Amino acid sequence: MSITTAPSSAEATRARIADAAEKLFRNMGYQKTAVADIARELGMSPANVYRFFASKSAINEAITARLLDGLLARLDAVIGGPGSAETRLHAFTQDTLNSCLSLFFHEKRMHDMVSAAMGEDWGVIRDYLERFIEMIARLVAEGMAAGEFAPGCPQAAARVIKGCTVAWHHPALLAECMQAMERTPADLSADLRQAMNLIISGLKRGTR
Amino acid sequence: MSITTAPSSAEATRARIADAAEKLFRNMGYQKTAVADIARELGMSPANVYRFFASKSAINEAITARLLDGLLARLDAVIGGPGSAETRLHAFTQDTLNSCLSLFFHEKRMHDMVSAAMGEDWGVIRDYLERFIEMIARLVAEGMAAGEFAPGCPQAAARVIKGCTVAWHHPALLAECMQAMERTPADLSADLRQAMNLIISGLKRGTR
Repeated sequence: MSITTAPSSAEATRARIADAAEKLFRNMGYQKTAVADIARELGMSPANVYRFFASKSAINEAITARLLDGLLARLDAVIGGPGSAETRLHAFTQDTLNSCLSLFFHEKRMHDMVSAAMGEDWGVIRDYLERFIEMIARLVAEGMAAGEFAPGCPQAAARVIKGCTVAWHHPALLAECMQAMERTPADLSADLRQAMNLIISGLKRGTR
Repeated sequence: MSITTAPSSAEATRARIADAAEKLFRNMGYQKTAVADIARELGMSPANVYRFFASKSAINEAITARLLDGLLARLDAVIGGPGSAETRLHAFTQDTLNSCLSLFFHEKRMHDMVSAAMGEDWGVIRDYLERFIEMIARLVAEGMAAGEFAPGCPQAAARVIKGCTVAWHHPALLAECMQAMERTPADLSADLRQAMNLIISGLKRGTR
């Protein structure tokens, strides 16, 4: 429904500001871009930008939210795809790792934006994590309903899975693993598969 | 044996320098302490300190190594203690969490020292992690030998367990969980227990 409804003029302006800012953040870097640069790019006054966003950090938050929305939409397709819950749980976690590696490292400047969002306002990240956990819970619930996994609370299991896989989706930890521990993307993928094998085995047996 | 053998004079001087530096790091903070301060504390010249340590960062590394040795010795006692492998694996991970929380947060300045070691030279941390994994492997091997856990490779399982529990022993992640996610130490302990329940269940069932 929201696709066919034309966005309000304020929403459209917010989106235009976010687009222009994202372009500048990608080209010049988050730290080096000022609200004045964003305003100039759009041919508007900085005061007008501030009518729509309280700060540069609020613009970044909106862009980070869009970016993470895109990631969640791709992951949602994996959850809704074919295969057993076990197969999809592996695919979901591997896709998360690949998306994070590509987001954080191939696009260094996007990494800076997400890091800034994590440093400045955790709200966007918290929303993302809640939806991320909700997706895992959906998959675990399907596996429990199908008898693939032992009965239990899907939400609790999903929180545990998110906590146990943080090394494979947290930007700072991924950077540390690759730099200090010299793990390659292929190593990380193999490590994650082993971790998920143990976790899935636990889900099959259950914890009661 | 090393307890009854008197340390060489060079070793004794290194230990004296480390003691004086640790005292200053704890009182003034790592960043604010200069090698000259450490030398003055000991009534020696900075040049003499540099005969034993190449840099302030090398002194910090030696102190961090001692600190982590103490942590590992406490954990070793848990591993060698009574109870099933399952019981000791819970105790080991809970003790690690408690030690990290106390080290990193009650002693804020020790946290700064460990963070500096992590930022400057990863060697000490890598050694610590290898010995940490080796301890878990010993416990898992005992559990496998006793038939508590399914047969498998204890080293591989230990690496997975270390990877899956990083959220409960990594200083930056613990800080993030407590600040941004507002988890209390009691929450973290309960989360870790749930995570270990799932992991132990996986160990019992095995991944083959």
